[in-house]
Amino acid sequence: MKKHNFSAGPCILPQEVMKKASEAVLDFNGLGLSLIEISHRSKDFVAVMEQAQSLVLELLGLENKGYKALFLQGGASLQFLSVAYNLLNRKAAYLNTGTWASKAIKEAKLFGELVEVASSKDANFNYIPKGYSIPADADYFHITTNNTIFGTQIKEVPDTDVTLVSDMSSDIFSRQLDFSKFGLIYAGAQKNMGPAGTTLVVVKEDILGKVERTIPSMLDYRIHIDKESMFNTPPVFAVYVSMLTLQWLKDLGGIQAIEKKNEEKAKTMYAEIDRNPLFKGFAAPEDRSYMNATFNLVNESHKELFDKLAKEADINGINGHRSVGGYRASMYNALPLESVQVLVDIMKELERKA
Amino acid sequence: MKKHNFSAGPCILPQEVMKKASEAVLDFNGLGLSLIEISHRSKDFVAVMEQAQSLVLELLGLENKGYKALFLQGGASLQFLSVAYNLLNRKAAYLNTGTWASKAIKEAKLFGELVEVASSKDANFNYIPKGYSIPADADYFHITTNNTIFGTQIKEVPDTDVTLVSDMSSDIFSRQLDFSKFGLIYAGAQKNMGPAGTTLVVVKEDILGKVERTIPSMLDYRIHIDKESMFNTPPVFAVYVSMLTLQWLKDLGGIQAIEKKNEEKAKTMYAEIDRNPLFKGFAAPEDRSYMNATFNLVNESHKELFDKLAKEADINGINGHRSVGGYRASMYNALPLESVQVLVDIMKELERKA
Ligand SMILES: Cc1ncc(COP(=O)(O)O)c(C=O)c1O
Ligand SMILES: Cc1ncc(COP(=O)(O)O)c(C=O)c1O
Ligand SMILES: [Mg+2]
Ligand SMILES: [Mg+2]
Ligand SMILES: [Mg+2]
Ligand SMILES: [Mg+2]
Repeated sequence: MKKHNFSAGPCILPQEVMKKASEAVLDFNGLGLSLIEISHRSKDFVAVMEQAQSLVLELLGLENKGYKALFLQGGASLQFLSVAYNLLNRKAAYLNTGTWASKAIKEAKLFGELVEVASSKDANFNYIPKGYSIPADADYFHITTNNTIFGTQIKEVPDTDVTLVSDMSSDIFSRQLDFSKFGLIYAGAQKNMGPAGTTLVVVKEDILGKVERTIPSMLDYRIHIDKESMFNTPPVFAVYVSMLTLQWLKDLGGIQAIEKKNEEKAKTMYAEIDRNPLFKGFAAPEDRSYMNATFNLVNESHKELFDKLAKEADINGINGHRSVGGYRASMYNALPLESVQVLVDIMKELERKA
Repeated sequence: MKKHNFSAGPCILPQEVMKKASEAVLDFNGLGLSLIEISHRSKDFVAVMEQAQSLVLELLGLENKGYKALFLQGGASLQFLSVAYNLLNRKAAYLNTGTWASKAIKEAKLFGELVEVASSKDANFNYIPKGYSIPADADYFHITTNNTIFGTQIKEVPDTDVTLVSDMSSDIFSRQLDFSKFGLIYAGAQKNMGPAGTTLVVVKEDILGKVERTIPSMLDYRIHIDKESMFNTPPVFAVYVSMLTLQWLKDLGGIQAIEKKNEEKAKTMYAEIDRNPLFKGFAAPEDRSYMNATFNLVNESHKELFDKLAKEADINGINGHRSVGGYRASMYNALPLESVQVLVDIMKELERKA
C-alpha cells in the first residue's frame, strides 16, 4: 500500500513519474544505457534539458517575453547568494516572512545595503505583513511567496515599479499568478517540480548585467543562460524527473487545472481544522498557505492518540517543524484529495475517541 | 545487450548499483515510499548520508586523521570558487595541466594573488610539467591529479610543505595514494563515485578558518561540516547512488583491488595504441592517464570505417573532446576489462581491413 505522503519536501511526486524515472535508471530511451551513465552532452539528454526549460516557460505563460529558464544546482539556498551577487548593486529591499526569507536576507547583506521593509517575526511569522513601503531606489524587492515552515502565503503580487524577485520554492506551479510581474523567480525543485538536486531559476534577461562587481562563473546567470544550463555537468537525474513532472502537469491541464485541485484540498483541510474543537490553525486565516497547513492540538495530551491514528492510517510526514510545533500537512500538486480526506477522517476520529 | 560504455562522465556505474537505484525510486527500504519523496531529515536518509561519508574516509584511509567528508551540490566547478573563498588569503599556487585547472585558476584570481607555477599549455596540455617550484608562502598549492580531457595524470603527489589541494574528479578511488598528504580533495561524483548531481569534498579541518573575508553560508566548508552536509536539502538520489557505488567498491576489496583492475585495463589499451601502426597516443607516455586514454588515427581517412566498427561492436562514448580530437577511451572503475578488449579487437580489425 502506498502511504499518504504529506512530507514538506522532498515530497510526493506523481506515481507515473516515479515509474518512468525508475525505468530510465535501467534503460533510457531504449539506448541500452542508463539515464545516469550517458553524457550530458548526448542528444538524448540535451533534448531532456531543452524540454524541461521550455515546459517551464510554457506553464508559467512566459514564452516570448524575454525570460530564460535555468536548471542549476545548489538548492534555493545558493540562490539567496546568487540573487545578491547578480542584482544587488547598492541597496535591496526584502520582506521578512520566515526562516527562508531571513536566510536570504543574511546572505544579501554581504553585498550592499539591506532594507527589511517589514517582518512578522514578532508573531513567530504567523502572518504576512501588509501596508509596508518599498524604497523606490532599491535594486530589487525580494519576497517569499509561500512560507513552508509557518504555513503562510502571499495572496497578491505586490504592486511596485521595483524589480520583483521571489523565492517560490514551495508554491511554484501550484496557482495562477501574473508571473510576468517578476524579474526573477527561483525554486528548489523538491516540492512541486521534482526531486531534490536541482533548482529552477526563471529570469528576465534585461535585469542582468547591471552590477559593478565581477561575478564568479558558477554564480553568474548570464553564463548559465549563454550555456543553456550546461556550463558544467547538470544534475541529470533531477532535471529528467523535473521534466517528467512538468509534462505530467501540462497533460493534466496546466496550472489552471491543478489550482482547482489544490484549492479543494486546502479548503477541505482548513474546514476541518476550524470545525474540529481539538485543533487550531497556526497561520492568520487570510494568509493561510494552500500548500502547507500548519495546525496544533488545543490539548497536547491528545498527541499520543493522534499520532497513533495517523500511523494506522498510513499517513507520513505530518510532524510540524520545530519552530512551530504541532502538525503540518503539506498538500503539494501530486498529493491526491483522497489523502487529505484520510487525514480529516482521523481528526474526526480523534474527536470521537478522545 | 548492454553497451560498452567509455563515456568520459557521467559514465558507467556498476550494474548492481543501477538495479538497486532503480528499485529505490519505486520503494525505498520497504517504506512504501520512494527514495525521492521522503524527507532528507528522515532516519532512513540520514543513515544513507552518514554511510556515504564514512565509506569515503574508510576507502581513502583517512579515518581519525582530522578529515571530514562532505556531499555538496554545484559540481567540481563550484569548488573552483569555494576553495579560493575558504583558503585563499593572500596568495595561491596552481599547476596548470588543462582545461579544468585553467578554469580553477580563473575563479581563484578573484580572491588574491595567483601564481601559476607551471603550465603545459604550450603543448596542448599533452604532458605534466615537472621541476617547478612552489612559493613557500602560498596559502595552498592546487593540482588536478587527472586531466580528463587531455588524458594525463600526475603519478607522484608533489612533495611540499604548502597545503595541497586537489581536483580529483576523474581519478578519485581509482588508485592508492597517500591521501593524508592533501589538505583538501574534491571531485564531482560523475566518474568513479556516482551519477551527476553531487560533489565530494574531503577536507582536513585544521586548514579552515584562516581567511579574513566573510564566506557566504553555502560556500563555507565549516558550515557544511557543522551541519553534516545537511545545511540545506542535499541531492538525495545522487548521494544514495554514490553510497551504493562506494559500498560496491568496498565489497570488491577497496582501492587496492580496483587499482589492479584499472592497471590491467590501461595497460591493455595503451599496448594496442602503441602496437597498432594506425593509431598514436596523444599524451606523453610517462604521464598517461589510467582513466582516460586519448589517441588519434595516424590517417584521418580511416575515421569512417573505425566509427562504423565501433558502432557495430556496441561501443559508446569514445569520441575525443574537441580540444584534442580523435578518440578518448575512459576506463573508470566500473568499466569491465572485457569492454577494453572489445575496443582493442576493433582496432585490430581496422588494421586488417583498412
Ligand atoms: C521557501 C523555501 N525557500 C528555500 C528553501 C531552501 O531550499 P534548499 O534546501 O533547496 O536550499 C526551502 C526549503 O524547504 C523553502 O521551503
Ligand atoms: C578534472 C575535472 N575537474 C572538474 C570538472 C568539472 O566538473 P563539474 O561538471 O562537476 O563541475 C570535470 C568535468 O568533467 C573534470 O573532469
Ligand atoms: Mg518559512
Ligand atoms: Mg478548530
Ligand atoms: Mg582537462
Ligand atoms: Mg600506434
